Amino acid sequence: MGHVAINLAQKLGLFHDLWSPRVVAELNDYQLKLAKLHGAFVWHQHDHTDELFYVLDGVLEIALDDGVVTLRPGELYVVPKGTRHRPFAAEPVSVLLIEPRGVVNTGDAGGALTAANDVWV
Amino acid sequence: MGHVAINLAQKLGLFHDLWSPRVVAELNDYQLKLAKLHGAFVWHQHDHTDELFYVLDGVLEIALDDGVVTLRPGELYVVPKGTRHRPFAAEPVSVLLIEPRGVVNTGDAGGALTAANDVWV
Repeated sequence: MGHVAINLAQKLGLFHDLWSPRVVAELNDYQLKLAKLHGAFVWHQHDHTDELFYVLDGVLEIALDDGVVTLRPGELYVVPKGTRHRPFAAEPVSVLLIEPRGVVNTGDAGGALTAANDVWV
Repeated sequence: MGHVAINLAQKLGLFHDLWSPRVVAELNDYQLKLAKLHGAFVWHQHDHTDELFYVLDGVLEIALDDGVVTLRPGELYVVPKGTRHRPFAAEPVSVLLIEPRGVVNTGDAGGALTAANDVWV
């Protein structure tokens, strides 16, 4: 045996800090990361990659220059590369992120909310 | 506006054929596909890519040469590239697959269960 499924709810129970993505799996050179969000993030963009948000719990709003996407549990959205966006969660939300290994959470913006990269849970 | 989340449950209601992945989103050159599975698939492998299975409804077993992975809703598993595997579902199961664009469902095995590629829902 030795082959075990990754249970996202179980992994979510293992950390509690906000805006600090945790890697749960890799697919070729892509990473799947769990993150807990609450409040407003910084406006930023990723110039070299799309970024996928899939909501597990709660409601996430992603502000874009020309609108807002609202994501409920079981819903996903792909922010195209080079697109400015700002995640916002009025209440705590748990999300699964998918993007290439090495992508920094604050993209071009940097700042205090920039999380350590490649931290696993 | 014009920016809308993709609701996986809603998309699952739009098709009913088994073993026929439907693309719901693209992330760079990767595709996210929904599939409905029931019964045993063919043993096969993908020589050039990992393949991610995430279970939405039901229970999926993935047989490997040296064991079986059991996936329940909210659980995922990445089959490494070049690894022989055979999905099996005793009851109907709905899964999300993630892999590069162009990957054929039956991999190296081919045969009657080979589905059309790049079909969206």
